[in-house]
Amino acid sequence: MTPQSICILGATGSIGLSTIDVALRHPDRFRIVTLTARQRMDELAELIRRTGARRVVVPDAAAAQRVREGLTGHTGKVEILQGDQALADVASDDHTDVVMAAIVGAAGLPAALAAAQTGKRVLLANKEALVAAGSIFMKAVRESGAVLLPIDSEHNAIFQCMPGGGQGSIGNGPAKGVNRIVLTASGGPFRTHNPDEMAHITPEQACAHPNWSMGRKISVDSATMVNKGLEVIEAHWLFDMTPDRIDVVIHPQSIVHSLVEYDDGSMLAQLGNPDMRTPIAHALGFPQRIEAGVDWLDLLKVGRLDFEEVNLLRYPCLDLAYQALRGGQGACIAFNAANEVAVEEFLQRRIPYPGIAAILEQALNWYSARSNVPVVSIEQVLELDAQARTFALAACQSRAA
Amino acid sequence: MTPQSICILGATGSIGLSTIDVALRHPDRFRIVTLTARQRMDELAELIRRTGARRVVVPDAAAAQRVREGLTGHTGKVEILQGDQALADVASDDHTDVVMAAIVGAAGLPAALAAAQTGKRVLLANKEALVAAGSIFMKAVRESGAVLLPIDSEHNAIFQCMPGGGQGSIGNGPAKGVNRIVLTASGGPFRTHNPDEMAHITPEQACAHPNWSMGRKISVDSATMVNKGLEVIEAHWLFDMTPDRIDVVIHPQSIVHSLVEYDDGSMLAQLGNPDMRTPIAHALGFPQRIEAGVDWLDLLKVGRLDFEEVNLLRYPCLDLAYQALRGGQGACIAFNAANEVAVEEFLQRRIPYPGIAAILEQALNWYSARSNVPVVSIEQVLELDAQARTFALAACQSRAA
Repeated sequence: MTPQSICILGATGSIGLSTIDVALRHPDRFRIVTLTARQRMDELAELIRRTGARRVVVPDAAAAQRVREGLTGHTGKVEILQGDQALADVASDDHTDVVMAAIVGAAGLPAALAAAQTGKRVLLANKEALVAAGSIFMKAVRESGAVLLPIDSEHNAIFQCMPGGGQGSIGNGPAKGVNRIVLTASGGPFRTHNPDEMAHITPEQACAHPNWSMGRKISVDSATMVNKGLEVIEAHWLFDMTPDRIDVVIHPQSIVHSLVEYDDGSMLAQLGNPDMRTPIAHALGFPQRIEAGVDWLDLLKVGRLDFEEVNLLRYPCLDLAYQALRGGQGACIAFNAANEVAVEEFLQRRIPYPGIAAILEQALNWYSARSNVPVVSIEQVLELDAQARTFALAACQSRAA
Repeated sequence: MTPQSICILGATGSIGLSTIDVALRHPDRFRIVTLTARQRMDELAELIRRTGARRVVVPDAAAAQRVREGLTGHTGKVEILQGDQALADVASDDHTDVVMAAIVGAAGLPAALAAAQTGKRVLLANKEALVAAGSIFMKAVRESGAVLLPIDSEHNAIFQCMPGGGQGSIGNGPAKGVNRIVLTASGGPFRTHNPDEMAHITPEQACAHPNWSMGRKISVDSATMVNKGLEVIEAHWLFDMTPDRIDVVIHPQSIVHSLVEYDDGSMLAQLGNPDMRTPIAHALGFPQRIEAGVDWLDLLKVGRLDFEEVNLLRYPCLDLAYQALRGGQGACIAFNAANEVAVEEFLQRRIPYPGIAAILEQALNWYSARSNVPVVSIEQVLELDAQARTFALAACQSRAA
């Protein structure tokens, strides 16, 4: 078996590091050829040494210099490329078989799309590719025959539970025999909080996630359930399910990562420890299963799995995400962009916690009033994204004033 | 699509009736051609009217006469066959595509085997085919290319959770990428009973199963976990897993029907309401999913799923079942035969509840002392089965004396 050449977009982030961890366990299957990073150049140099990567993409000349210094004494030849175009190039050229698309935010979109357009095996961890550009991205997957594998634990779980173990479940219309998909949500730190007392929530409280260790932005998104709402939108694009066939249920232990309901009354669920190496190993090895270095799930230690209804008074943002999904691609862009702004303003203590939902609602109304703005190219996606950010920032400032 | 012709062995039992219920929902897919029954001839006549079956097998001339009377005024032509050989004939001839093997006990073995030998789609609900004759039965499946689909909710769940949605997971060696299978057990009525007070358990207490409505024999088997032990043995034959890769965990709610653990740390689970129409519809439709008339599983109503370790002091029979499995085909026959005798003696109040485990242990020792009795034909299976019953009955009587 010839090893597959991997390109990791966003190598120094947590998904990137986990991907390296899994891939290095299987040198017979994978060769890490390309790494990209925007930050932590010293760490990038270290990763080049560990993986034997032969090329990297960094933002600029200063970063390149930093990497070169970090590689002093390294014997392998390393090509150091710079800039955004290089990201798309390495994700789509002939030196790459598998792309881990783990660059966060809109910045990761063009490279993920380039990989999809050139028929790569795309391991998708970037949300924007589907949230902001689902129709464009999925069209590219279908036309090129790219193999798309979701890395988010929820979507990876759904994929595993789909008919035939997931084979053919993306890009071919709604899976036959499937009635509904059910995303699980931890409920975040405010699952038992009084909805009337949301106004006093601080950034510190919002960032204390019970099950996963995460960055501040994603922690707030988990607390508001915007994150789950974005996952609903992603699930729609990945599995071609209408909004009424995508449900969310609170599952505080985060062991059941999601479920699929079948016409015969069966539900299939994927369970596991909260370790991203499992979905990464699944996607790297698919359709085979490969060892991930993850502890076996001990059901006896877990002991108990709970399921609760989502109270939309406590999580109004989830309802708004469904509204965005029903409003189409543009509404989803506005929703996501406004959320990034509102969360940052909340973290900076410039708007209160309930202000996030208020800004999202305003952004949806703003988009709805503009109506029919076409979003069929990445340029149009990025333009609408920028406009929505401008609107949301102004809305935050007018609230704060 | 030409409808498939179904032969239901054991039509008036609960599995048979559920099969009819599901099949009649899909007249485009299935035609119920053959029904067999040992009891309830009036009900059989009624089922012929409902299904339009064209032939039946009954035990003898008196039963045949009873059915004929029950069919007064029925316009369709119905062939009424008699005797055990007819069971094997209808299960294997050209008028049958799909066989539901739902005759209970050793009596169902020859017909199930005939279906497997002739390459039918075999929906297996008869335990003996695997417990008493696993090697013979699985050899027949492999050689004929029969499609074997398990109906037991646990094995059906495991099948659904296997790689590729189960396709190819039976008869082709242990599934690649699977580390372990985990059978769930309700724990029966004595899950929280003091192990020291087992001696006073009555048949009435043993027959009060918390989740499923079942006959008395199977209720006792559920209480002792002999039933789970037999399922471990069946799982071994179906999925070609060694005993150390088959675990049992107590799950009091009986919603998770079983799980499969993968090398990447994932576990897949099948969940559902306790309604046998789900596994039956799964097996009838496989690899497609068809509607089963079963209520959707309401996770919010379920609310909570618990998992507990099996305390072998409380369930010594489970440990003995693993011993039987390690002891080979003959030990499993002795175990199963002795259990049937011991349970009947317990139900007749001739031995106490802990006597069941004691008789099973004696039977395993009895078989072990005889050693190397060959069991490669059905005749040898049935002979050893009879000898083990004789031994077990004598052992019960000597305990009671």
